[in-house]
Amino acid sequence: MAKIEARLEKMGIVLPPPLKLPAGMVIPFSFVVVRGSTAYIAGHAAQNADGSIAGPLGKVGAEVTPEQAADLAKGVAVSILASLKRQLGDLDRITGWNKALGMVNVAPGFAATTGVINGFSNFILDVFGPEVGEHTRSAVGVAVLPMNIAVEIEAEVEIRT
Amino acid sequence: MAKIEARLEKMGIVLPPPLKLPAGMVIPFSFVVVRGSTAYIAGHAAQNADGSIAGPLGKVGAEVTPEQAADLAKGVAVSILASLKRQLGDLDRITGWNKALGMVNVAPGFAATTGVINGFSNFILDVFGPEVGEHTRSAVGVAVLPMNIAVEIEAEVEIRT
Amino acid sequence: MAKIEARLEKMGIVLPPPLKLPAGMVIPFSFVVVRGSTAYIAGHAAQNADGSIAGPLGKVGAEVTPEQAADLAKGVAVSILASLKRQLGDLDRITGWNKALGMVNVAPGFAATTGVINGFSNFILDVFGPEVGEHTRSAVGVAVLPMNIAVEIEAEVEIRT
Repeated sequence: MAKIEARLEKMGIVLPPPLKLPAGMVIPFSFVVVRGSTAYIAGHAAQNADGSIAGPLGKVGAEVTPEQAADLAKGVAVSILASLKRQLGDLDRITGWNKALGMVNVAPGFAATTGVINGFSNFILDVFGPEVGEHTRSAVGVAVLPMNIAVEIEAEVEIRT
Repeated sequence: MAKIEARLEKMGIVLPPPLKLPAGMVIPFSFVVVRGSTAYIAGHAAQNADGSIAGPLGKVGAEVTPEQAADLAKGVAVSILASLKRQLGDLDRITGWNKALGMVNVAPGFAATTGVINGFSNFILDVFGPEVGEHTRSAVGVAVLPMNIAVEIEAEVEIRT
Repeated sequence: MAKIEARLEKMGIVLPPPLKLPAGMVIPFSFVVVRGSTAYIAGHAAQNADGSIAGPLGKVGAEVTPEQAADLAKGVAVSILASLKRQLGDLDRITGWNKALGMVNVAPGFAATTGVINGFSNFILDVFGPEVGEHTRSAVGVAVLPMNIAVEIEAEVEIRT
Protein backbone atom coordinates (compact mmCIF):
# COMPACT_ATOMS: atom_id res chain seq x y z
CA MET A 1 0.00 0.00 0.00
CA ALA A 2 1.09 3.52 -0.68
CA LYS A 3 2.87 5.20 2.23
CA ILE A 4 0.62 8.24 2.68
CA GLU A 5 -2.57 6.23 2.37
CA ALA A 6 -1.26 3.71 4.91
CA ARG A 7 -0.60 6.64 7.23
CA LEU A 8 -4.13 7.99 6.73
CA GLU A 9 -5.63 4.55 7.39
CA LYS A 10 -3.61 4.26 10.60
CA MET A 11 -4.97 7.66 11.65
CA GLY A 12 -8.53 6.49 10.92
CA ILE A 13 -9.00 9.03 8.12
CA VAL A 14 -11.41 8.11 5.31
CA LEU A 15 -11.24 10.27 2.18
CA PRO A 16 -14.66 11.60 1.10
CA PRO A 17 -16.23 11.15 -2.37
CA PRO A 18 -16.45 14.09 -4.82
CA LEU A 19 -18.25 17.17 -3.51
CA LYS A 20 -22.04 16.83 -3.58
CA LEU A 21 -23.19 20.34 -4.48
CA PRO A 22 -26.38 22.00 -3.27
CA ALA A 23 -29.21 21.82 -5.86
CA GLY A 24 -28.79 24.37 -8.64
CA MET A 25 -25.14 25.13 -7.96
CA VAL A 26 -22.76 24.77 -10.89
CA ILE A 27 -18.98 24.91 -10.65
CA PRO A 28 -17.17 25.18 -13.97
CA PHE A 29 -13.69 24.95 -12.43
CA SER A 30 -11.61 21.92 -11.42
CA PHE A 31 -10.57 21.04 -7.89
CA VAL A 32 -7.03 20.07 -8.93
CA VAL A 33 -5.17 21.02 -12.11
CA VAL A 34 -1.69 19.66 -12.85
CA ARG A 35 0.69 21.80 -14.94
CA GLY A 36 4.21 20.41 -15.18
CA SER A 37 5.36 19.44 -11.69
CA THR A 38 2.85 21.67 -9.90
CA ALA A 39 -0.64 20.69 -8.77
CA TYR A 40 -2.88 23.72 -8.24
CA ILE A 41 -5.64 23.14 -5.70
CA ALA A 42 -8.89 25.11 -5.75
CA GLY A 43 -10.47 26.48 -2.59
CA HIS A 44 -11.96 23.50 -0.75
CA ALA A 45 -14.58 23.12 1.98
CA ALA A 46 -14.75 20.37 4.61
CA GLN A 47 -17.05 17.50 3.64
CA ASN A 48 -19.26 14.95 5.33
CA ALA A 49 -18.74 11.24 4.64
CA ASP A 50 -21.42 11.34 1.91
CA GLY A 51 -19.58 14.14 0.07
CA SER A 52 -21.87 17.00 1.12
CA ILE A 53 -20.56 20.23 2.64
CA ALA A 54 -19.81 19.78 6.35
CA GLY A 55 -21.13 22.23 8.92
CA PRO A 56 -21.39 24.11 11.07
CA LEU A 57 -21.93 26.95 8.60
CA GLY A 58 -21.61 30.61 9.50
CA LYS A 59 -19.14 33.04 10.99
CA VAL A 60 -16.32 32.03 13.30
CA GLY A 61 -16.69 33.97 16.52
CA ALA A 62 -20.49 33.90 16.21
CA GLU A 63 -22.24 30.71 14.97
CA VAL A 64 -19.00 28.70 14.81
CA THR A 65 -16.51 28.36 17.68
CA PRO A 66 -12.74 28.59 17.10
CA GLU A 67 -12.43 24.89 18.03
CA GLN A 68 -15.10 23.88 15.49
CA ALA A 69 -13.37 26.05 12.90
CA ALA A 70 -9.99 24.38 13.51
CA ASP A 71 -11.74 21.00 13.06
CA LEU A 72 -13.23 22.27 9.79
CA ALA A 73 -9.74 23.36 8.67
CA LYS A 74 -8.53 19.80 9.27
CA GLY A 75 -11.57 18.61 7.31
CA VAL A 76 -10.58 20.88 4.43
CA ALA A 77 -7.18 19.18 4.39
CA VAL A 78 -8.90 15.78 4.18
CA SER A 79 -11.10 17.00 1.29
CA ILE A 80 -8.02 18.30 -0.51
CA LEU A 81 -6.27 14.93 -0.09
CA ALA A 82 -9.36 13.24 -1.57
CA SER A 83 -9.23 15.54 -4.61
CA LEU A 84 -5.48 14.99 -4.99
CA LYS A 85 -5.94 11.20 -4.75
CA ARG A 86 -8.55 11.30 -7.54
CA GLN A 87 -6.32 13.46 -9.75
CA LEU A 88 -2.86 12.01 -9.03
CA GLY A 89 -3.80 8.38 -8.38
CA ASP A 90 -1.15 8.10 -5.67
CA LEU A 91 -0.64 10.59 -2.84
CA ASP A 92 3.00 9.50 -2.60
CA ARG A 93 3.59 11.52 -5.78
CA ILE A 94 3.41 14.67 -3.63
CA THR A 95 7.00 15.78 -3.02
CA GLY A 96 6.32 19.09 -1.30
CA TRP A 97 3.56 21.35 -0.04
CA ASN A 98 4.33 24.79 -1.40
CA LYS A 99 1.71 27.07 0.07
CA ALA A 100 -1.79 27.41 1.41
CA LEU A 101 -4.16 30.37 1.58
CA GLY A 102 -6.49 29.90 4.53
CA MET A 103 -9.69 31.96 4.47
CA VAL A 104 -11.85 32.25 7.56
CA ASN A 105 -15.41 33.61 7.48
CA VAL A 106 -15.14 35.87 10.53
CA ALA A 107 -17.60 37.64 12.79
CA PRO A 108 -16.64 41.23 13.67
CA GLY A 109 -13.94 41.22 16.35
CA PHE A 110 -12.64 37.68 15.72
CA ALA A 111 -8.92 37.90 14.89
CA ALA A 112 -7.63 34.44 15.94
CA THR A 113 -7.45 33.13 12.38
CA THR A 114 -3.99 31.68 13.00
CA GLY A 115 -5.31 29.05 15.40
CA VAL A 116 -8.11 28.12 12.99
CA ILE A 117 -5.84 27.44 10.03
CA ASN A 118 -3.41 25.57 12.31
CA GLY A 119 -5.99 22.75 12.10
CA PHE A 120 -4.98 22.40 8.45
CA SER A 121 -1.23 22.92 8.89
CA ASN A 122 -0.85 20.52 11.82
CA PHE A 123 -2.70 17.77 9.94
CA ILE A 124 -0.63 18.19 6.75
CA LEU A 125 2.61 18.09 8.78
CA ASP A 126 1.36 15.07 10.72
CA VAL A 127 0.53 13.12 7.54
CA PHE A 128 3.44 14.15 5.31
CA GLY A 129 6.21 14.83 7.88
CA PRO A 130 8.35 17.96 8.29
CA GLU A 131 10.09 17.87 4.89
CA VAL A 132 7.34 17.13 2.39
CA GLY A 133 4.71 18.74 4.59
CA GLU A 134 6.57 22.02 5.11
CA HIS A 135 4.56 24.91 3.66
CA THR A 136 4.04 28.65 3.74
CA ARG A 137 0.68 30.11 4.57
CA SER A 138 -1.57 33.08 5.13
CA ALA A 139 -4.60 32.94 7.41
CA VAL A 140 -6.96 35.75 6.62
CA GLY A 141 -10.40 36.76 7.82
CA VAL A 142 -12.78 37.34 4.91
CA ALA A 143 -16.20 38.94 4.68
CA VAL A 144 -17.95 35.84 3.39
CA LEU A 145 -17.28 32.43 1.84
CA PRO A 146 -19.38 30.52 -0.73
CA MET A 147 -22.53 28.99 0.80
CA ASN A 148 -21.56 30.67 4.06
CA ILE A 149 -19.02 27.97 4.92
CA ALA A 150 -16.75 28.89 7.83
CA VAL A 151 -13.36 27.87 6.41
CA GLU A 152 -12.00 27.56 2.86
CA ILE A 153 -8.39 26.78 1.91
CA GLU A 154 -6.63 26.77 -1.46
CA ALA A 155 -3.14 25.34 -1.90
CA GLU A 156 -0.35 24.33 -4.23
CA VAL A 157 1.86 21.23 -4.12
CA GLU A 158 4.89 20.00 -6.00
CA ILE A 159 4.55 16.52 -7.50
CA ARG A 160 6.62 13.79 -9.11
CA THR A 161 5.61 13.71 -12.79
CA MET B 1 -5.00 35.11 -37.69
CA ALA B 2 -4.16 33.65 -34.33
CA LYS B 3 -6.66 31.05 -33.10
CA ILE B 4 -7.72 32.63 -29.82
CA GLU B 5 -8.08 36.10 -31.32
CA ALA B 6 -10.18 34.69 -34.15
CA ARG B 7 -12.36 33.08 -31.52
CA LEU B 8 -12.72 36.38 -29.63
CA GLU B 9 -13.60 38.21 -32.84
CA LYS B 10 -16.26 35.62 -33.65
CA MET B 11 -17.70 36.17 -30.15
CA GLY B 12 -17.74 39.94 -30.75
CA ILE B 13 -15.21 40.59 -27.98
CA VAL B 14 -12.98 43.66 -28.35
CA LEU B 15 -9.96 43.85 -26.03
CA PRO B 16 -9.73 47.16 -24.16
CA PRO B 17 -6.68 49.49 -24.14
CA PRO B 18 -4.45 49.77 -21.03
CA LEU B 19 -6.22 50.74 -17.83
CA LYS B 20 -7.00 54.46 -17.59
CA LEU B 21 -6.48 55.22 -13.91
CA PRO B 22 -8.43 57.77 -11.89
CA ALA B 23 -6.55 61.06 -11.50
CA GLY B 24 -3.83 60.89 -8.86
CA MET B 25 -3.70 57.10 -8.68
CA VAL B 26 -0.29 55.50 -9.18
CA ILE B 27 0.32 51.78 -9.60
CA PRO B 28 3.95 50.72 -9.39
CA PHE B 29 3.23 47.07 -10.21
CA SER B 30 2.83 45.33 -13.58
CA PHE B 31 -0.35 43.69 -14.82
CA VAL B 32 1.48 40.66 -16.24
CA VAL B 33 4.96 39.40 -15.34
CA VAL B 34 6.51 36.43 -17.14
CA ARG B 35 9.00 34.28 -15.25
CA GLY B 36 10.08 31.15 -17.12
CA SER B 37 6.98 29.43 -18.49
CA THR B 38 4.59 31.11 -16.04
CA ALA B 39 2.74 34.38 -16.56
CA TYR B 40 1.62 35.94 -13.29
CA ILE B 41 -1.46 38.14 -13.63
CA ALA B 42 -2.20 40.98 -11.20
CA GLY B 43 -5.68 41.58 -9.84
CA HIS B 44 -7.72 43.09 -12.69
CA ALA B 45 -10.95 45.09 -12.86
CA ALA B 46 -13.45 45.12 -15.72
CA GLN B 47 -12.92 48.00 -18.16
CA ASN B 48 -14.99 50.15 -20.48
CA ALA B 49 -14.08 50.39 -24.18
CA ASP B 50 -12.02 53.54 -23.49
CA GLY B 51 -9.92 51.73 -20.86
CA SER B 52 -11.54 53.27 -17.79
CA ILE B 53 -12.82 51.18 -14.88
CA ALA B 54 -16.26 49.69 -15.69
CA GLY B 55 -19.14 50.04 -13.26
CA PRO B 56 -21.36 49.52 -11.50
CA LEU B 57 -19.16 50.13 -8.47
CA GLY B 58 -20.09 49.06 -4.96
CA LYS B 59 -21.05 45.98 -3.01
CA VAL B 60 -22.63 42.90 -4.57
CA GLY B 61 -25.91 42.26 -2.83
CA ALA B 62 -26.48 46.01 -2.32
CA GLU B 63 -25.55 48.46 -5.12
CA VAL B 64 -24.60 45.68 -7.56
CA THR B 65 -26.83 42.72 -8.46
CA PRO B 66 -25.42 39.19 -8.74
CA GLU B 67 -26.13 39.26 -12.50
CA GLN B 68 -24.23 42.54 -12.94
CA ALA B 69 -21.39 41.10 -10.88
CA ALA B 70 -21.17 37.97 -13.06
CA ASP B 71 -21.01 40.28 -16.11
CA LEU B 72 -18.21 42.22 -14.42
CA ALA B 73 -16.38 38.94 -13.77
CA LYS B 74 -16.57 38.20 -17.50
CA GLY B 75 -15.32 41.75 -18.11
CA VAL B 76 -12.36 41.06 -15.82
CA ALA B 77 -11.50 38.04 -17.99
CA VAL B 78 -11.57 40.30 -21.08
CA SER B 79 -9.29 42.85 -19.36
CA ILE B 80 -6.89 40.06 -18.41
CA LEU B 81 -6.79 38.83 -22.00
CA ALA B 82 -5.99 42.38 -23.13
CA SER B 83 -3.07 42.56 -20.67
CA LEU B 84 -1.84 39.11 -21.73
CA LYS B 85 -2.05 40.10 -25.42
CA ARG B 86 0.07 43.20 -24.76
CA GLN B 87 2.66 41.19 -22.81
CA LEU B 88 2.77 37.94 -24.80
CA GLY B 89 2.05 39.26 -28.28
CA ASP B 90 0.02 36.17 -29.14
CA LEU B 91 -2.70 34.68 -26.93
CA ASP B 92 -2.08 31.28 -28.55
CA ARG B 93 1.08 31.10 -26.43
CA ILE B 94 -1.15 30.31 -23.45
CA THR B 95 -0.98 26.55 -22.91
CA GLY B 96 -2.93 26.30 -19.67
CA TRP B 97 -4.84 28.33 -17.12
CA ASN B 98 -3.45 27.34 -13.75
CA LYS B 99 -5.54 29.20 -11.20
CA ALA B 100 -7.65 32.22 -10.45
CA LEU B 101 -8.45 34.00 -7.20
CA GLY B 102 -11.82 35.68 -7.51
CA MET B 103 -12.55 38.44 -5.01
CA VAL B 104 -16.05 39.82 -4.62
CA ASN B 105 -16.82 43.07 -2.75
CA VAL B 106 -19.81 41.79 -0.78
CA ALA B 107 -22.61 43.37 1.18
CA PRO B 108 -23.37 41.70 4.52
CA GLY B 109 -25.37 38.52 3.93
CA PHE B 110 -24.36 37.96 0.30
CA ALA B 111 -22.73 34.52 0.03
CA ALA B 112 -23.36 33.59 -3.63
CA THR B 113 -19.80 34.40 -4.71
CA THR B 114 -19.58 31.15 -6.69
CA GLY B 115 -22.12 32.33 -9.26
CA VAL B 116 -20.37 35.69 -9.61
CA ILE B 117 -16.95 34.24 -10.41
CA ASN B 118 -18.57 31.70 -12.75
CA GLY B 119 -18.86 34.67 -15.15
CA PHE B 120 -15.06 34.55 -15.39
CA SER B 121 -14.66 30.77 -15.47
CA ASN B 122 -17.35 30.14 -18.09
CA PHE B 123 -15.85 32.75 -20.40
CA ILE B 124 -12.30 31.38 -20.09
CA LEU B 125 -13.54 27.84 -20.78
CA ASP B 126 -15.61 29.10 -23.71
CA VAL B 127 -12.64 30.90 -25.29
CA PHE B 128 -9.84 28.40 -24.56
CA GLY B 129 -11.73 25.09 -24.46
CA PRO B 130 -11.76 22.45 -21.71
CA GLU B 131 -8.06 21.52 -21.84
CA VAL B 132 -6.20 24.83 -22.00
CA GLY B 133 -9.01 26.63 -20.17
CA GLU B 134 -9.19 24.22 -17.24
CA HIS B 135 -8.33 26.01 -14.00
CA THR B 136 -8.66 25.90 -10.24
CA ARG B 137 -10.27 28.73 -8.38
CA SER B 138 -11.41 30.31 -5.17
CA ALA B 139 -14.32 32.76 -5.00
CA VAL B 140 -14.14 34.76 -1.83
CA GLY B 141 -16.12 37.66 -0.40
CA VAL B 142 -13.85 40.48 0.72
CA ALA B 143 -14.45 43.59 2.82
CA VAL B 144 -13.49 46.03 0.09
CA LEU B 145 -11.71 46.27 -3.25
CA PRO B 146 -9.62 49.14 -4.67
CA MET B 147 -11.76 52.08 -5.83
CA ASN B 148 -14.78 50.17 -4.53
CA ILE B 149 -14.94 47.96 -7.63
CA ALA B 150 -17.31 45.01 -7.25
CA VAL B 151 -15.14 42.20 -8.65
CA GLU B 152 -11.37 41.71 -8.91
CA ILE B 153 -9.60 38.57 -10.14
CA GLU B 154 -5.94 37.61 -10.18
CA ALA B 155 -4.66 34.56 -12.08
CA GLU B 156 -1.74 32.54 -13.33
CA VAL B 157 -1.25 30.87 -16.72
CA GLU B 158 1.30 28.55 -18.25
CA ILE B 159 2.81 29.75 -21.53
CA ARG B 160 4.93 28.54 -24.42
CA THR B 161 8.29 30.34 -24.09
CA MET C 1 29.44 42.55 0.25
CA ALA C 2 26.40 41.28 -1.54
CA LYS C 3 24.75 43.83 -3.82
CA ILE C 4 21.26 43.89 -2.31
CA GLU C 5 22.54 44.01 1.26
CA ALA C 6 24.87 46.87 0.36
CA ARG C 7 21.86 48.66 -1.10
CA LEU C 8 19.84 48.08 2.09
CA GLU C 9 22.71 49.33 4.25
CA LYS C 10 22.97 52.49 2.16
CA MET C 11 19.23 53.02 2.65
CA GLY C 12 19.68 52.59 6.41
CA ILE C 13 17.53 49.44 6.51
CA VAL C 14 18.29 46.90 9.24
CA LEU C 15 16.70 43.46 8.81
CA PRO C 16 14.81 42.30 11.93
CA PRO C 17 15.41 39.01 13.78
CA PRO C 18 12.88 36.13 13.53
CA LEU C 19 9.32 37.00 14.53
CA LYS C 20 8.79 37.11 18.30
CA LEU C 21 5.30 35.69 18.72
CA PRO C 22 2.80 36.74 21.38
CA ALA C 23 2.73 34.31 24.33
CA GLY C 24 0.77 31.16 23.59
CA MET C 25 0.75 31.58 19.81
CA VAL C 26 2.06 28.65 17.78
CA ILE C 27 2.74 28.74 14.05
CA PRO C 28 3.38 25.37 12.45
CA PHE C 29 4.14 26.81 9.00
CA SER C 30 7.39 28.22 7.57
CA PHE C 31 7.96 31.80 6.50
CA VAL C 32 9.83 30.82 3.34
CA VAL C 33 9.79 27.47 1.53
CA VAL C 34 12.00 26.83 -1.50
CA ARG C 35 10.79 24.36 -4.13
CA GLY C 36 12.96 24.23 -7.26
CA SER C 37 13.63 27.78 -8.40
CA THR C 38 10.66 29.28 -6.55
CA ALA C 39 10.64 30.66 -3.02
CA TYR C 40 7.15 30.78 -1.53
CA ILE C 41 6.72 33.47 1.10
CA ALA C 42 4.09 33.23 3.85
CA GLY C 43 1.96 36.19 4.87
CA HIS C 44 4.23 38.51 6.85
CA ALA C 45 3.60 41.35 9.29
CA ALA C 46 5.83 44.38 9.88
CA GLN C 47 8.22 43.96 12.82
CA ASN C 48 9.94 46.12 15.42
CA ALA C 49 13.74 46.00 15.75
CA ASP C 50 13.42 43.37 18.52
CA GLY C 51 11.42 41.05 16.25
CA SER C 52 8.00 41.71 17.79
CA ILE C 53 4.95 42.66 15.71
CA ALA C 54 5.01 46.37 14.81
CA GLY C 55 1.99 48.57 15.39
CA PRO C 56 -0.20 50.41 15.10
CA LEU C 57 -2.69 47.54 15.17
CA GLY C 58 -6.28 47.84 14.02
CA LYS C 59 -8.28 48.83 10.99
CA VAL C 60 -7.02 51.18 8.29
CA GLY C 61 -9.43 54.07 8.02
CA ALA C 62 -10.19 53.91 11.76
CA GLU C 63 -7.33 53.25 14.23
CA VAL C 64 -4.63 53.28 11.53
CA THR C 65 -4.16 56.10 8.99
CA PRO C 66 -3.45 55.35 5.30
CA GLU C 67 0.05 56.83 5.73
CA GLN C 68 0.79 54.59 8.72
CA ALA C 69 -0.54 51.63 6.73
CA ALA C 70 1.76 52.38 3.78
CA ASP C 71 4.67 52.52 6.24
CA LEU C 72 3.60 49.16 7.64
CA ALA C 73 3.49 47.75 4.09
CA LYS C 74 7.10 48.87 3.63
CA GLY C 75 7.84 47.24 6.99
CA VAL C 76 6.30 44.00 5.73
CA ALA C 77 8.71 44.11 2.78
CA VAL C 78 11.63 44.49 5.21
CA SER C 79 10.37 41.52 7.28
CA ILE C 80 10.08 39.44 4.12
CA LEU C 81 13.65 40.32 3.12
CA ALA C 82 14.82 39.24 6.59
CA SER C 83 13.06 35.86 6.17
CA LEU C 84 14.49 35.45 2.67
CA LYS C 85 18.00 36.30 3.93
CA ARG C 86 17.74 33.62 6.64
CA GLN C 87 16.48 31.03 4.14
CA LEU C 88 18.54 31.85 1.04
CA GLY C 89 21.75 33.10 2.70
CA ASP C 90 22.23 35.72 0.00
CA LEU C 91 19.50 38.09 -1.24
CA ASP C 92 21.33 38.40 -4.58
CA ARG C 93 20.00 34.91 -5.35
CA ILE C 94 16.61 36.54 -6.01
CA THR C 95 16.26 36.85 -9.78
CA GLY C 96 12.67 38.06 -9.96
CA TRP C 97 9.69 39.03 -7.85
CA ASN C 98 6.74 37.12 -9.25
CA LYS C 99 3.74 38.29 -7.29
CA ALA C 100 2.42 39.68 -4.04
CA LEU C 101 -0.98 39.47 -2.40
CA GLY C 102 -1.49 42.53 -0.23
CA MET C 103 -4.18 42.24 2.45
CA VAL C 104 -5.39 45.33 4.29
CA ASN C 105 -7.49 45.15 7.47
CA VAL C 106 -10.04 47.81 6.51
CA ALA C 107 -12.64 49.84 8.36
CA PRO C 108 -16.01 50.12 6.58
CA GLY C 109 -15.77 52.66 3.78
CA PHE C 110 -11.99 52.55 3.33
CA ALA C 111 -11.24 51.57 -0.29
CA ALA C 112 -7.78 53.11 -0.88
CA THR C 113 -5.96 49.81 -0.52
CA THR C 114 -3.87 50.52 -3.62
CA GLY C 115 -1.98 53.35 -1.92
CA VAL C 116 -1.37 51.22 1.16
CA ILE C 117 0.24 48.32 -0.69
CA ASN C 118 2.24 50.78 -2.81
CA GLY C 119 4.41 51.11 0.32
CA PHE C 120 5.50 47.53 -0.33
CA SER C 121 5.79 47.76 -4.12
CA ASN C 122 7.76 51.01 -4.17
CA PHE C 123 10.26 49.65 -1.65
CA ILE C 124 10.79 46.38 -3.54
CA LEU C 125 11.31 48.28 -6.81
CA ASP C 126 13.67 50.71 -5.07
CA VAL C 127 15.82 47.92 -3.63
CA PHE C 128 15.79 45.46 -6.54
CA GLY C 129 15.38 47.78 -9.54
CA PRO C 130 12.81 47.61 -12.34
CA GLU C 131 13.77 44.22 -13.79
CA VAL C 132 14.24 41.95 -10.77
CA GLY C 133 11.76 43.97 -8.71
CA GLU C 134 8.97 43.91 -11.27
CA HIS C 135 5.94 42.08 -9.84
CA THR C 136 2.20 41.61 -10.15
CA ARG C 137 -0.06 42.30 -7.25
CA SER C 138 -3.51 42.45 -5.75
CA ALA C 139 -4.40 44.84 -2.91
CA VAL C 140 -7.52 43.67 -1.17
CA GLY C 141 -9.45 44.82 1.88
CA VAL C 142 -10.12 41.96 4.26
CA ALA C 143 -12.40 41.57 7.27
CA VAL C 144 -9.61 40.85 9.72
CA LEU C 145 -5.96 39.83 9.93
CA PRO C 146 -4.22 37.66 12.56
CA MET C 147 -3.68 39.52 15.85
CA ASN C 148 -5.55 42.45 14.33
CA ILE C 149 -2.49 43.63 12.37
CA ALA C 150 -3.30 46.28 9.76
CA VAL C 151 -1.35 44.93 6.78
CA GLU C 152 -0.23 41.43 5.75
CA ILE C 153 1.48 40.50 2.48
CA GLU C 154 2.38 37.12 1.00
CA ALA C 155 4.59 36.79 -2.06
CA GLU C 156 6.55 34.56 -4.40
CA VAL C 157 10.00 35.09 -5.89
CA GLU C 158 12.15 33.33 -8.44
CA ILE C 159 15.65 32.40 -7.26
CA ARG C 160 18.99 31.17 -8.58
CA THR C 161 19.36 27.60 -7.31
